[in-house]
Amino acid sequence: MEPPAYLNIAQKLESQILSGALGLGVRIPSVRVLSAQQDVSVATILRAYEWLEARGCIKAHQRSGYYVRAPFQTLIPEPEFRPVTPYPINVGDIPSMDEILSAARTPDLISLGASAPNVDVFPAAKLNKILRRVICESPNHSASYDFPPGRIELRREIARRSLAFGGEFNPNDIVVTSGGIEAIVLCLRAVARPGQVVAIEIPTYYGVLAAIQSLGLKVLEIPTHHNEGIDLGELERSLRKHKVAALLTMPNCNSPLGHVMNESNKQRLVDLCERHHVPVIENDVFRELAFGETFPRPAKSYDNTGNVLLCSSFSKTLGPGFRVGWVHAGKYRDAVTKLKFTSSLATASLPQLVVAEFLASGGYERHVRRIRYTFSDHVQAFTHAITKCFPSGTKMTRPRGGYILWVQLPKRASSEVLFRRALKRGVFVTPGSIFSVKQQFRNCLRVNAGMLWSSKTAGALRVIGELASERVSSAKRG
Amino acid sequence: MEPPAYLNIAQKLESQILSGALGLGVRIPSVRVLSAQQDVSVATILRAYEWLEARGCIKAHQRSGYYVRAPFQTLIPEPEFRPVTPYPINVGDIPSMDEILSAARTPDLISLGASAPNVDVFPAAKLNKILRRVICESPNHSASYDFPPGRIELRREIARRSLAFGGEFNPNDIVVTSGGIEAIVLCLRAVARPGQVVAIEIPTYYGVLAAIQSLGLKVLEIPTHHNEGIDLGELERSLRKHKVAALLTMPNCNSPLGHVMNESNKQRLVDLCERHHVPVIENDVFRELAFGETFPRPAKSYDNTGNVLLCSSFSKTLGPGFRVGWVHAGKYRDAVTKLKFTSSLATASLPQLVVAEFLASGGYERHVRRIRYTFSDHVQAFTHAITKCFPSGTKMTRPRGGYILWVQLPKRASSEVLFRRALKRGVFVTPGSIFSVKQQFRNCLRVNAGMLWSSKTAGALRVIGELASERVSSAKRG
Repeated sequence: MEPPAYLNIAQKLESQILSGALGLGVRIPSVRVLSAQQDVSVATILRAYEWLEARGCIKAHQRSGYYVRAPFQTLIPEPEFRPVTPYPINVGDIPSMDEILSAARTPDLISLGASAPNVDVFPAAKLNKILRRVICESPNHSASYDFPPGRIELRREIARRSLAFGGEFNPNDIVVTSGGIEAIVLCLRAVARPGQVVAIEIPTYYGVLAAIQSLGLKVLEIPTHHNEGIDLGELERSLRKHKVAALLTMPNCNSPLGHVMNESNKQRLVDLCERHHVPVIENDVFRELAFGETFPRPAKSYDNTGNVLLCSSFSKTLGPGFRVGWVHAGKYRDAVTKLKFTSSLATASLPQLVVAEFLASGGYERHVRRIRYTFSDHVQAFTHAITKCFPSGTKMTRPRGGYILWVQLPKRASSEVLFRRALKRGVFVTPGSIFSVKQQFRNCLRVNAGMLWSSKTAGALRVIGELASERVSSAKRG
Repeated sequence: MEPPAYLNIAQKLESQILSGALGLGVRIPSVRVLSAQQDVSVATILRAYEWLEARGCIKAHQRSGYYVRAPFQTLIPEPEFRPVTPYPINVGDIPSMDEILSAARTPDLISLGASAPNVDVFPAAKLNKILRRVICESPNHSASYDFPPGRIELRREIARRSLAFGGEFNPNDIVVTSGGIEAIVLCLRAVARPGQVVAIEIPTYYGVLAAIQSLGLKVLEIPTHHNEGIDLGELERSLRKHKVAALLTMPNCNSPLGHVMNESNKQRLVDLCERHHVPVIENDVFRELAFGETFPRPAKSYDNTGNVLLCSSFSKTLGPGFRVGWVHAGKYRDAVTKLKFTSSLATASLPQLVVAEFLASGGYERHVRRIRYTFSDHVQAFTHAITKCFPSGTKMTRPRGGYILWVQLPKRASSEVLFRRALKRGVFVTPGSIFSVKQQFRNCLRVNAGMLWSSKTAGALRVIGELASERVSSAKRG
């Protein structure tokens, strides 16, 4: 059978890029021009370009066309996926957690460990301008409690933005929280009692694991693929086998794996959990940083019954210090509202006002469009550096959004030892061991590619590469 | 036996005040002048004036002497104290809570129900000036996480202020929280597991009861006297009889009773709980609003073993919308720090910076000294109005600080019915029933005397007085 027309075109371009005939950074013809040249439909060219983009060969730049990049196949390979049949386990203290938190607080370290980008990425000047205006127009901005569900100005803007994915949220269904993690914790408390089991994807951000531990919940660690997302087959078997109080999932720009689950799988996920009466807590904090021209949809957008609790925040796009998050908790709205009241009474007023104003002004949309490209560039720079300076046998994700890279070192490397040795050399990187209760990722690292690409970050990556190489060779000798 | 000299002098002045020979608002001789006139020590006069102040006859005004006030005995009597032997009980849903929260969010009501003063009391202009400076000097104020324990600038200032009561806190022992209620909840979670029993004072603020409920804890309601504070005898019997995971107490400017426990009883309280290995969670949010020239000491200042967890916030002095609270958790510091991390990751940065600056500038001390007099005046105005327009048989506290009044209506009155009927007439007042799990205060009201005294608030009090009178007479008829 003939390959489809789009694939023909795409593969030709790919081989030109791989051979170097089309050099890095070169702008390729626009969709319209190529469609005219090749006498095929615009849709065909678009599909060819999507195919190339998914393989890392080209990248769209807002309003200025497509540019050649280093194809993924020239990078080190993607991580191995190890499907493991899960069983419910208690979450004990997370080893090294205190050390890691202490590193996160230490100034002067080159931080590839925190999940926060370089400060320059945030629109400080614009936000400060709004702040000044708010102070002037509402001098008593902080003189009263903004009781749950929170500031209506902000909830209205969040609801309005849901139209982009057909959400049609009602502002009264939004509860403002002190950042995304509070949203997730309130949802967990609303749907699960201590001793019950929560299904999670692994690897999962250790802050969430620590929260689950503090709530006295058990976890069921569902294997998650770095491209496909949560293993739906395993999830289904697990839901049949075990009593599960909730599923915690991050289908868009997953942290740390970077994948975006495809839309039909999101639908399957939502249907599956609905069928098993398992509430879905969706962590959506990175979705708006998806690379490419369009935003993927949250799983929540496939929810017709109120079974999905959508949690998000402005920490990744405007700055984590504002502590402005939110949740649309579906049928658990009242429970979450009450829990917000009983756990922190209200969210700080001034940050809510500032974020609401920025959203209303349209500045937020422009800003988010811009930083998606910034982060895509950062990730490109980091992946190339890691390819160059990490020991052979290293594997690495291809994030579809956000700024988190997941690096798999050769099997016998210990990321915790590496973490400690890197600290001594002034570099903070997070060991993978703490992304699973069963410590399934002892040879992995989470790398924050949100930092500006500079000689400093390049040097930090070289340090980690060196240390990893030492570990590998000493492990071989040992 | 002769009465002591101070009492002689004090009682003479009292009768002059009661007879009207010394009229309301008249300035009485200064301590030095009177000591010279009467040829007794300054200490004796000071003691006489303290006695008069405790009976509401006079009031010190900062740097300008003592002024005549309406003595407490011209007011309606103080509430009855009903000692009830407590037993551990589960905290169910708090009836009317949703209605009350919804009233708290309703604009245009005259709010005698919220526990927040008139916005004009807060130093908005000064804080906004600092805000502008912070924005200018640290444009990236919100670009990173202020991980627990929180901003060092703020923790340093909080520690410094502890010197005033001999606290000598270490900044590293302070954890910044999103307001006082988060501090209390983190402490409860650090010391008590679901199903365990927490001893509380009653009446207790319903937000705290709701928090206890949400944590799945039981309560032991220790009777608390409107002047003496928690019934120490009953507390001791209870600690002998029941296994108690923590005591939650508010010995200074108690809300809603308004008492300041005397210093030796604070010491006894701390020793008693230490002896029974029961951690003490001290709610200190109103202490700095104590009336008079000196601040009472927190119970924490009598703690030598780290058994007292001191919780406070700037909500009552600078504005609740900043959501800046803190805790010195003694030997539970690490547990509380970790719980802060797992429940909201960090506290908003900008409010922390602004409060820290205001504290460092010395502006905070001046501001607090000022508003203590403001609130004392508010309380005076409210108590007189209540004396005038509430039905006979009404009783009322004599707050020693803060701005909360506790009003006991004649026995058969229902504060919940009153709450609903007042709402219809545009007035929000909190029913006492929700200040105890066993609903021991069905005929009580909490009145927020933090509002400016105006024709509006006077009218609102008249409405409540009228409704209360109707209830009383209809109850009599019924």
